[in-house]
Amino acid sequence: MEITFLGTGGGIPSKDRNVASLALRWTERRGRTWLFDCGEGTQHQILRSPVRLPRVDRVFITHLHGDHIFGLPGLLGSRSFQGAESSLFIHAPEGLRPFVEASLKASATHLRYSLEWRELTEGKWTTEEGVRVEVAKLSHSVPSYGFRIEEPDQPGCLDVSKLQAEGISPGPVYRDLKRGETVRLPDGRILYGEQYRRPDRPGRVIAILGDTRPTEEAVRLARGADLLIHEATFRKGREDLAAKHGHTTSVQAAQIAVRAGVGGLLLTHISPRYSNAEAAELEEEARKQFPNTDVVVDGQTVTVVPAGG
Amino acid sequence: MEITFLGTGGGIPSKDRNVASLALRWTERRGRTWLFDCGEGTQHQILRSPVRLPRVDRVFITHLHGDHIFGLPGLLGSRSFQGAESSLFIHAPEGLRPFVEASLKASATHLRYSLEWRELTEGKWTTEEGVRVEVAKLSHSVPSYGFRIEEPDQPGCLDVSKLQAEGISPGPVYRDLKRGETVRLPDGRILYGEQYRRPDRPGRVIAILGDTRPTEEAVRLARGADLLIHEATFRKGREDLAAKHGHTTSVQAAQIAVRAGVGGLLLTHISPRYSNAEAAELEEEARKQFPNTDVVVDGQTVTVVPAGG
Repeated sequence: MEITFLGTGGGIPSKDRNVASLALRWTERRGRTWLFDCGEGTQHQILRSPVRLPRVDRVFITHLHGDHIFGLPGLLGSRSFQGAESSLFIHAPEGLRPFVEASLKASATHLRYSLEWRELTEGKWTTEEGVRVEVAKLSHSVPSYGFRIEEPDQPGCLDVSKLQAEGISPGPVYRDLKRGETVRLPDGRILYGEQYRRPDRPGRVIAILGDTRPTEEAVRLARGADLLIHEATFRKGREDLAAKHGHTTSVQAAQIAVRAGVGGLLLTHISPRYSNAEAAELEEEARKQFPNTDVVVDGQTVTVVPAGG
Repeated sequence: MEITFLGTGGGIPSKDRNVASLALRWTERRGRTWLFDCGEGTQHQILRSPVRLPRVDRVFITHLHGDHIFGLPGLLGSRSFQGAESSLFIHAPEGLRPFVEASLKASATHLRYSLEWRELTEGKWTTEEGVRVEVAKLSHSVPSYGFRIEEPDQPGCLDVSKLQAEGISPGPVYRDLKRGETVRLPDGRILYGEQYRRPDRPGRVIAILGDTRPTEEAVRLARGADLLIHEATFRKGREDLAAKHGHTTSVQAAQIAVRAGVGGLLLTHISPRYSNAEAAELEEEARKQFPNTDVVVDGQTVTVVPAGG
């Protein structure tokens, strides 16, 4: 499971940071990819990333501000141009669909695949691959949502070293044990599959949040997650400005991470008013509250590891 | 008068070329700028160019394909964010307005300035600054337009060397002669303004065309122009493909330039299938027909000089 940050700035693009988008790649599932937000230029950023557009099968839109959606029409067209024929699910707040449909109509864009529209509402659901998705509404100037993504537990692999220590050589017996079956050896020993499987690996949990003021919903969505991705539009000391515009400061985001007890915190949606040097200071401010914090940059890829792993 | 090419590729963005846009800067008029087409990422390209978004006061859209319009919603919002309060004229084919309005509505974008919509129709008109604009329909898969832009003739400046040769010293008399007035000197001589003005400098003429097959309308719009900006989506030998998709090859564009008798030809809208090396070959093919041809690249700025100048 890898996350590639395609745009880490807030509001308008700058030379350093594009507007919002990130890709969650299920590397263990042949690279199928979920996209979160799609600001203008997201498809351009993808060209310079490990993400392959035809592999994107779900797009989640946290809220409808332009810096989170204006890249969608072009991305949909390019996904078609690149030959994708599989359906694309779009999970978005009410109101996105008329924009997308007006875009496709005006431009005479004909997609080779179908769009499956899923209007965001609070609650939980499970994908066909067993991923649990929880959606909750945050606190912003327009309806804005956050997501808790829970990977299913991964079955433990065969404990080969234990088998070899017991003098059992590789062969069909390994395959049967891996399936959990019971095997009788020629020497009469009976082996039980579950005794030779390593413990299940717990599924990873990440929380990905749209623009928001500090909110209890963020703490709840991120509770115990391996990773929290939170906006930090403003620096410490600009709490009034942040509250006015529906945003969070670096230190406030770190306090959310502390309260939720997450493994790591990644800060994004940095205001274009801040230089790279100031963004580094913003990171330092947050680390005083929650040491395992990073301000991410465009193009950065992070491998998600279990908090205890 | 300068032209900055913001996107010189066709169809979809590539690492080398963004989708279509160019800026015409009236450098003699305090940098007021006209934008032609606005593919996704145009505002990003502007960040890396001499163009200043608040100075853009007219946007011309040649046709409604996504690679020519999907950057417009974000650009409109950023122009507002950067403080522009002056009206923006949008000259576009029928059908653009619903897309833009749906974009602004979905994203809750409130512009600080008004949009002045002008639907494109064939014909001529003159701006308040005296620039003549001629619009004609080209030949593409959707209605696509070309523009002939004629700068007004510039009044000749005062012929100071002639005045000095006649022993007339600088002073109020220079100002009056420059205005074209008749002046009586203390020594009784009578000077006529028009005798001391250099000849008018003819206004520059450029033709900027949307996507098109080779068409007589292109020849007509470009007749005698100082500069023709024409698409060359495909290379020589792909005439069938070009015709099928409503485009032009390098050599066909050069033949248009020859027939129109233009001063120079700039080729743009190069298919992303071509590498930079292939684009150079495409340029060579065209130069065999019309030597003063260049394939432009993203970020390139060209100063428009009169063909005889």
